[in-house]
Amino acid sequence: MSLPREFRSDNAAPAHPAVMAAILAANEGSAGAYGADKWTTRVQDWIKAEFGEQAEAFLVWNGTGANVTALRATTRPWQSVITSVHAHINVDECGAPELLAGVKLVDIPSDNGKLDPAAVAAAASRGVGFEHHVQPGVMSISQSTEYGTVYTVEELVTLVDTAHRHGLLVHVDGARLANAAAAIGASLGDISAAAGVDILSLGFTKNGAVSAEAVVVLEPSLAPPLKYIRKQTTQLASKMRYLAAQFVAMAEGELWLANARRANAMARRLADGLRGVPGLRITQSVDANAVFAMLPEGMAERLWQQGFNFYVWDDATGEVRLMTSWATAVEDVDDLVAAVRRET
Amino acid sequence: MSLPREFRSDNAAPAHPAVMAAILAANEGSAGAYGADKWTTRVQDWIKAEFGEQAEAFLVWNGTGANVTALRATTRPWQSVITSVHAHINVDECGAPELLAGVKLVDIPSDNGKLDPAAVAAAASRGVGFEHHVQPGVMSISQSTEYGTVYTVEELVTLVDTAHRHGLLVHVDGARLANAAAAIGASLGDISAAAGVDILSLGFTKNGAVSAEAVVVLEPSLAPPLKYIRKQTTQLASKMRYLAAQFVAMAEGELWLANARRANAMARRLADGLRGVPGLRITQSVDANAVFAMLPEGMAERLWQQGFNFYVWDDATGEVRLMTSWATAVEDVDDLVAAVRRET
Amino acid sequence: MSLPREFRSDNAAPAHPAVMAAILAANEGSAGAYGADKWTTRVQDWIKAEFGEQAEAFLVWNGTGANVTALRATTRPWQSVITSVHAHINVDECGAPELLAGVKLVDIPSDNGKLDPAAVAAAASRGVGFEHHVQPGVMSISQSTEYGTVYTVEELVTLVDTAHRHGLLVHVDGARLANAAAAIGASLGDISAAAGVDILSLGFTKNGAVSAEAVVVLEPSLAPPLKYIRKQTTQLASKMRYLAAQFVAMAEGELWLANARRANAMARRLADGLRGVPGLRITQSVDANAVFAMLPEGMAERLWQQGFNFYVWDDATGEVRLMTSWATAVEDVDDLVAAVRRET
Amino acid sequence: MSLPREFRSDNAAPAHPAVMAAILAANEGSAGAYGADKWTTRVQDWIKAEFGEQAEAFLVWNGTGANVTALRATTRPWQSVITSVHAHINVDECGAPELLAGVKLVDIPSDNGKLDPAAVAAAASRGVGFEHHVQPGVMSISQSTEYGTVYTVEELVTLVDTAHRHGLLVHVDGARLANAAAAIGASLGDISAAAGVDILSLGFTKNGAVSAEAVVVLEPSLAPPLKYIRKQTTQLASKMRYLAAQFVAMAEGELWLANARRANAMARRLADGLRGVPGLRITQSVDANAVFAMLPEGMAERLWQQGFNFYVWDDATGEVRLMTSWATAVEDVDDLVAAVRRET
Repeated sequence: MSLPREFRSDNAAPAHPAVMAAILAANEGSAGAYGADKWTTRVQDWIKAEFGEQAEAFLVWNGTGANVTALRATTRPWQSVITSVHAHINVDECGAPELLAGVKLVDIPSDNGKLDPAAVAAAASRGVGFEHHVQPGVMSISQSTEYGTVYTVEELVTLVDTAHRHGLLVHVDGARLANAAAAIGASLGDISAAAGVDILSLGFTKNGAVSAEAVVVLEPSLAPPLKYIRKQTTQLASKMRYLAAQFVAMAEGELWLANARRANAMARRLADGLRGVPGLRITQSVDANAVFAMLPEGMAERLWQQGFNFYVWDDATGEVRLMTSWATAVEDVDDLVAAVRRET
Repeated sequence: MSLPREFRSDNAAPAHPAVMAAILAANEGSAGAYGADKWTTRVQDWIKAEFGEQAEAFLVWNGTGANVTALRATTRPWQSVITSVHAHINVDECGAPELLAGVKLVDIPSDNGKLDPAAVAAAASRGVGFEHHVQPGVMSISQSTEYGTVYTVEELVTLVDTAHRHGLLVHVDGARLANAAAAIGASLGDISAAAGVDILSLGFTKNGAVSAEAVVVLEPSLAPPLKYIRKQTTQLASKMRYLAAQFVAMAEGELWLANARRANAMARRLADGLRGVPGLRITQSVDANAVFAMLPEGMAERLWQQGFNFYVWDDATGEVRLMTSWATAVEDVDDLVAAVRRET
Repeated sequence: MSLPREFRSDNAAPAHPAVMAAILAANEGSAGAYGADKWTTRVQDWIKAEFGEQAEAFLVWNGTGANVTALRATTRPWQSVITSVHAHINVDECGAPELLAGVKLVDIPSDNGKLDPAAVAAAASRGVGFEHHVQPGVMSISQSTEYGTVYTVEELVTLVDTAHRHGLLVHVDGARLANAAAAIGASLGDISAAAGVDILSLGFTKNGAVSAEAVVVLEPSLAPPLKYIRKQTTQLASKMRYLAAQFVAMAEGELWLANARRANAMARRLADGLRGVPGLRITQSVDANAVFAMLPEGMAERLWQQGFNFYVWDDATGEVRLMTSWATAVEDVDDLVAAVRRET
Repeated sequence: MSLPREFRSDNAAPAHPAVMAAILAANEGSAGAYGADKWTTRVQDWIKAEFGEQAEAFLVWNGTGANVTALRATTRPWQSVITSVHAHINVDECGAPELLAGVKLVDIPSDNGKLDPAAVAAAASRGVGFEHHVQPGVMSISQSTEYGTVYTVEELVTLVDTAHRHGLLVHVDGARLANAAAAIGASLGDISAAAGVDILSLGFTKNGAVSAEAVVVLEPSLAPPLKYIRKQTTQLASKMRYLAAQFVAMAEGELWLANARRANAMARRLADGLRGVPGLRITQSVDANAVFAMLPEGMAERLWQQGFNFYVWDDATGEVRLMTSWATAVEDVDDLVAAVRRET
């Protein structure tokens, strides 16, 4: 049997060779611990170039760490985080936000992973000033979303303005921000700082790093306690140069963009190939690097048997998620399309 | 000016080339996320070989993450953690144990970083069953300690037995367990599992890894919830193979031992060189890879000016810490000794 | 203008004279603090008589305290509490369960405040063993519910069995358990211990006490840490005799039942009077001591002007809640009915 | 055998008849829940009269609730609370501050329960700005202290100024503030608001109430979130009128002062009677309503046998605490003195 063809997760991809090279290059001599090193300094410079002079990055290892740190920085425990019912912070972090920030997550139904401004406004208006209810504190959105959809700049600005008008801070879970930026031809700053976002979880792990995420503080008044929050959230790296080196590699020649474009292109290619297959329905707009689909009865099993790896996203409906990454091979995409068409 | 000669921290050292090579070697093709990869499986095998069949490892990134995960697994929030006043969990984790586990740390005075069994027994006897007081839950010790001292196997067994007799679970903060094992010629298992320790933070970051720690569960009844606790503590790596690869490299040919021996030898060489210098007093037994000393008035400043990096450990007394690592150069040690003797 | 006629809340009612008399009677001489008094002993005896020999009560001041204590006793922070979207713990405790227990509340839609066994089974089956998801830990239901509806014994048994089969513990928020018992002619034990409930928040404040709630542990293995949990949740009363005396008064001659019957009867009388009023719709089954209704346009305002106190329950729909208590006057009910009919 | 003569705790005393009368008087008709009642309004007026126009009171049931609420209002979880090693918040609240506020308590040794300004300054200077260490946030002192000692106004002002100069907020645990005020002939405001204290736990339970404490916010910028913090800390009373009525009774004719004077006078009478007894040593200054003493060998047991109730405070030394209250009978004091002298 051939090697598995990988559509499970962008987390299953290896790191990009340039990232590896940067890690190796950072492995020379001694360096100050906890960020007192030249690589971390270079990351800060790049962050300011991308997000503006007021921006400050706090490097961490993973998305849960970034999200929890960001939420702790923007809430007090009697506040709530308004978010999509599908949000990673709501579903896939084993309750870390509730435990570490003490907050309640108020989830809003969503068909495509995006939040509707009217629903945010309604949620942000409930119970304000009423001591029995959690107080609306933050709106947290994912860009791109867990459904592979992307907010346009206009949608984003409308949403951020709605949140701000209701006194909410705005957090973006950007575990796949690069894919979103690539999708709509915007810069990373265009879809965060420029749109008024207050704090950002910026993730490069899925986009070709080993493990490299950051909390990017865009609203400067939030920055002073960040270093303590990161440390107390268990996310302060001692040998931080190796985290920083990954960001340096991603910044170099906009590797982040090339990787994201490639991942997105593979998803589009896959979606294009699948469209028109009888009994197969693509269920979400393929904006970034995921294809969600309903497969004909029994097809998932047959594809698994042929060595295609992917997940059933929704046990109730059988909807599957086909995820591409910077490392997805064109042949694997084409093979999957061919297999689907063969099995129909 | 020459390069700085590094005695600040074993965290300032680079990673060992073999660790780098292992990370690079792991960077091939796709791999299951979150530990469903062959490197993590190999780590589990090695863990069982070192610590016994009942042992189970949960890989994490850093010491704070390992310690908090271990304490959450062994306590309920109304319990206390009995530990040295100098313990890393008490001093250097920005209150993470209190926030994440909800517990109170009950600190015991100690001259050399080690706990005295009688003091543990006394602390473990206070307030038992009295609802106003936190209930003694865990004894946490560091091996080697924050003062570079090492418990002998006999000391360890006595302490563990004392703790168990008083109904405490036993946690070892082994951020430098390798240095302790090397110091007394024991295996990693001898000074943990065999001594009755229930849960262990096993750290390789300071000993030549990039970032590689583990919670090793030795008392099997503690294992079932560990995976949820690790995740919720923000310490679950998606691309875990790169964490695991570092352990694999450390296990290979007992690199962990060679590195620790080298670090310890450098500390002994430094201590031997410094002994007898007028006005200089080595304040702690140099068991592992640290030399604590009182320097003659003004010497610290003069050494810093000459490019030797090290910390004042205790602002009140001026006591300094001189830390060696696997990467410390013999010449740097000898230069430091020479500089001290010259400046006396 | 006459005095306001009170339909806002059973919290607005005074305490029953017999409760006051018991508090006064307890005010003699010194008594052991923190429950070491004869009144608390009498409460324990009564609890065992009502709920069985294995039952143990921990007196507290309020419902939030009882609920949080009970949830802390039955969960670990990576677990979830499956409950109705309308549950008091979900809506009206300012996020106290999330902060103090660290848990996530998983809310289930419900039209009438009751949980559907199938929905519980589905929620209890999601993500089990999957480390990214909170793990189902407890089902929490309210009896009577926030909508004044009451589970029959049969419904309750089915629900409890469903929960137990899925490995959940069962908590009942019994802030109005007396009203439920009175409604269906069951004993307090019939609708808790006998149905297999594991832990109960038993509330008498709304039923004629000043401030008297209890966590009643029905599953004995949950009892040992309860005293620490209560203390740490800030709910341990020093002069506990005054809390206990209120329970003693409630137990005496089954005052709790008489009060609950009276409150329920007032709600029925009100509902009977309102039925058939054009444009007025009673929206929930009037099982206990609340009437939920949609009033004709503008009627709420006109009733308020005439001195009737009540709340709009749902701002979106205008649905109102008319609450009765042990102290509701027949004339007030009849006046309200008359006013409604006059204003139609 | 006669009734026990009570020197265990001021918590063992009954409530003052005037407090009972006020509770009874409040039991008329309906009243707004959660503080929307006229008794609570009257308490606010009295608070402003005692502590200044800027002061605001949040009524709660017990000292743990008041202290935790106050600490949550003045800290973030990465901060520390600097306090005496003997402080109630450090010893006798089962770790509630750590769990609910997430903070670390940094305890300072003290012979008499009072904090030394130099020690506070030193603790407040450690680790500032260093991300590994908890950041000094609040100084919490008890007035009167757990050892029955009282800060003079001058001592208090010096301490508060020291704390403020180091950027700390100041919390006073005033579970026995009345006893302190009575002891030094100061008003309640003199030893709190006027001295610069930021937030106060004001306790009347031990001074003749049933259960009546308050968080008094003196620094107005701390007030806005207090109502949410109180609710989330489980300390919001639904039928608040009964809490408020107790404060009203205490304020009326300065009952709080009369009660405190009486309790203090009984302690002085007891101390005067015990002084000079061979082998008996009064170990603390008897400023308020407690006498701490070392008794001759075996005397404690003999006194218990004769029906005198009191606690051994320190198991290690055998030091006992003899506590008086507003209700302590002169004859009981004289009987105790006589018994001691007889047993010598």
